[in-house]
Amino acid sequence: MQAAHHFVIVGGGFAGLWATRALASAPVRITLIDRHNHHLFQPLLYQVATAGLSAPDIAAPLRHILRKQANVEVRLAEVAAIAPQEKHVVLADGTTIAYDALLLATGATHAYFGHDEWARHAPGLKTLDDALQLRRHLLLAFERAEAETDPGKRAAWLSFAIVGGGPTGVELAGTLAEIARHTLKNEFRRIDPSQARVRLVEAGPRVLASFPDTLSEKARRQLERLGVEVVTGTPVSDITDEGYRLGETFIPAKTVVWAAGVAASPLARTLGVSLDRAGRVPVQPDLSVAGHPDIFVAGDLAAVTSDGRPVPGVAPAAKQMGRHVAQVLRARLDGRASPGDFRYQDYGNLATIGRMAAVVDFGRLKFSGLLAWWFWLTAHVFFLIGFRNRLVVLLNWCWAYWSYQRGARIILGKDEDQAGSTRQA
Amino acid sequence: MQAAHHFVIVGGGFAGLWATRALASAPVRITLIDRHNHHLFQPLLYQVATAGLSAPDIAAPLRHILRKQANVEVRLAEVAAIAPQEKHVVLADGTTIAYDALLLATGATHAYFGHDEWARHAPGLKTLDDALQLRRHLLLAFERAEAETDPGKRAAWLSFAIVGGGPTGVELAGTLAEIARHTLKNEFRRIDPSQARVRLVEAGPRVLASFPDTLSEKARRQLERLGVEVVTGTPVSDITDEGYRLGETFIPAKTVVWAAGVAASPLARTLGVSLDRAGRVPVQPDLSVAGHPDIFVAGDLAAVTSDGRPVPGVAPAAKQMGRHVAQVLRARLDGRASPGDFRYQDYGNLATIGRMAAVVDFGRLKFSGLLAWWFWLTAHVFFLIGFRNRLVVLLNWCWAYWSYQRGARIILGKDEDQAGSTRQA
Repeated sequence: MQAAHHFVIVGGGFAGLWATRALASAPVRITLIDRHNHHLFQPLLYQVATAGLSAPDIAAPLRHILRKQANVEVRLAEVAAIAPQEKHVVLADGTTIAYDALLLATGATHAYFGHDEWARHAPGLKTLDDALQLRRHLLLAFERAEAETDPGKRAAWLSFAIVGGGPTGVELAGTLAEIARHTLKNEFRRIDPSQARVRLVEAGPRVLASFPDTLSEKARRQLERLGVEVVTGTPVSDITDEGYRLGETFIPAKTVVWAAGVAASPLARTLGVSLDRAGRVPVQPDLSVAGHPDIFVAGDLAAVTSDGRPVPGVAPAAKQMGRHVAQVLRARLDGRASPGDFRYQDYGNLATIGRMAAVVDFGRLKFSGLLAWWFWLTAHVFFLIGFRNRLVVLLNWCWAYWSYQRGARIILGKDEDQAGSTRQA
Repeated sequence: MQAAHHFVIVGGGFAGLWATRALASAPVRITLIDRHNHHLFQPLLYQVATAGLSAPDIAAPLRHILRKQANVEVRLAEVAAIAPQEKHVVLADGTTIAYDALLLATGATHAYFGHDEWARHAPGLKTLDDALQLRRHLLLAFERAEAETDPGKRAAWLSFAIVGGGPTGVELAGTLAEIARHTLKNEFRRIDPSQARVRLVEAGPRVLASFPDTLSEKARRQLERLGVEVVTGTPVSDITDEGYRLGETFIPAKTVVWAAGVAASPLARTLGVSLDRAGRVPVQPDLSVAGHPDIFVAGDLAAVTSDGRPVPGVAPAAKQMGRHVAQVLRARLDGRASPGDFRYQDYGNLATIGRMAAVVDFGRLKFSGLLAWWFWLTAHVFFLIGFRNRLVVLLNWCWAYWSYQRGARIILGKDEDQAGSTRQA
């Protein structure tokens, strides 16, 4: 057969994977490149970080997902740059891969607003490795507190701050409070984990800013009921090894988690087009890049408006963009008219807060609390990729629900410092 | 209450944990020290390494297991030395912990028979971190082969060697062959994973030397049916980055796994008593150390004979030793006569080989194949600590059984080299 149109997709997240699947029967040869071997169900990443789920529970190998789609080749590799003129991508090892059309969907990473030195003290949560590092850090903090004899230092180990009141920050804070109050109950002899101070710090006026005020307020109250101290309207002005600064006061804390800012993947810079403040690529209404009709951008990396409103960086939007790119490309190959502009279908907004607490916003219909939590649970189990994962996750959650326990409370990996080292035979 | 007898246990494996539990109602204050926060079900470690199970599936936090046992304090710490004269243990951070009685149960580690330089090229399998590293290496080997264009190098990536024909080596070889032949089927476009060469190398005359000849022979045939090349009577004379040497011939192989030798934990050396060739502590019939009645050694670290035969380094023996130490200590505290010598109750010997293949030796009763495999499965699920783990493991296995899939095929962690790096945003 004559060499088919070569469509290169960088990034196996929601945008990239949904675009790939939508082209299953299309006369294209697809190369899907990702630096991980798996598609990650990011909405549940905080559960891995808080020891509720194992890493493999929320990830599935891209090769396995796509094994039956003959027109796809999956490549595990890191893309270093895009060369629009030469129409090829450059891998980290120097190899180049030529494309006829390209979809850039490498998503977003943490942004420290010009304070990259904070990254060392306040890790973020984007990959499974981030989640396992964070899990390790959270669990070790209680161990350190138990081993610490100095009251001040012990308090610092039991002081947790989550910076950023978006969905991830809220989920982390709520779950961490539950761990301290319930999961670790009776397990320590020198400390009382329920004395841990879990603080959620939001620079803006309210948490879950993407939700209506009423639900933000409900979320705040639910967080406080779970034992989270919610601080709004105050930006963090400094983060060190010993704690963080709120306005003028320095709060000792050995654990600060960054859930505040995201910036688009740096790969976008190599495109040679002007990016928005968050480093995202402003795209045409059909999701192609101005001046580069053969290059598409989708997912968190794309800056796109729909009905005059900016499209949020959420999974459903990424899936829809991926599918739209597939339709546009398909129409081009068939010589049909383009399906037109991308329009974001907003099916509603969910955020979980903790045990039996969540908020749901369907525009006219808004609700919170237990019902919202059940709704969130069902939706997320349903959307999880892979039959087996759904079952395991459900099982873990049922178990966690009646036992207050968390199945993945295992500290893995090497240690930065000595105590609790993993080097003994 | 007047300060109770302080019993320090180093190591939360089978020996240490079973000793701890056996003293639940004893008038002792127990400090259980482990460098990990979890008890590990080592018999299933190879399943984590071969992506069949997640790390948390076969581990449970020691604190959680013992939360209701009021006379125990769990400490996450690394023990650097024992000071028998001072009657205290020294932690890596310099802290000392005084004891009235001590149980040393830190188990075994890999031994490279004076070729420690092989360790870098041929990792072993003792901890969860070892298992995750090995999983990562095994899965990446196929990825590297897919990306490799040079036929020779590609063959080397698809050439696997497991050194050591004991239970662990046999389990790894059998499972790896299944992965290559079934699990990865149709997932690659440039390589055929079933062409992978899986070789089990045993220096001795037969695999599973601890079993009767007939079962060794059966195991060999079952391995070959699964696609494993079994080489016996030939020691590996060298291991490098590029492969390994069998006698005079050098076989290119990018993956060599070490399942050959174990040596006792180096901590034993600090006891100041003479050790056996494997570095184990020769103990009295009551499991105490000659000249140190207040120091006991149990599990893989102890060199002990029962009915004139050396006690094997298996989980049941470790549990029995742990319980025996508890009885001896209890008798002493109550001023009763010692329960006497430790006697190993051998309930039989199991080894799994792979899908529907295993061998079982109950002395008079010996069987192999599917029945043995079901027996092995049931026994291991039954012995798994923690209700939830059992369920999750069962679920994973059922799923793996009908799908030929493996639930934990997720490549985690940073990479030594560039390709497949995890640094892209």
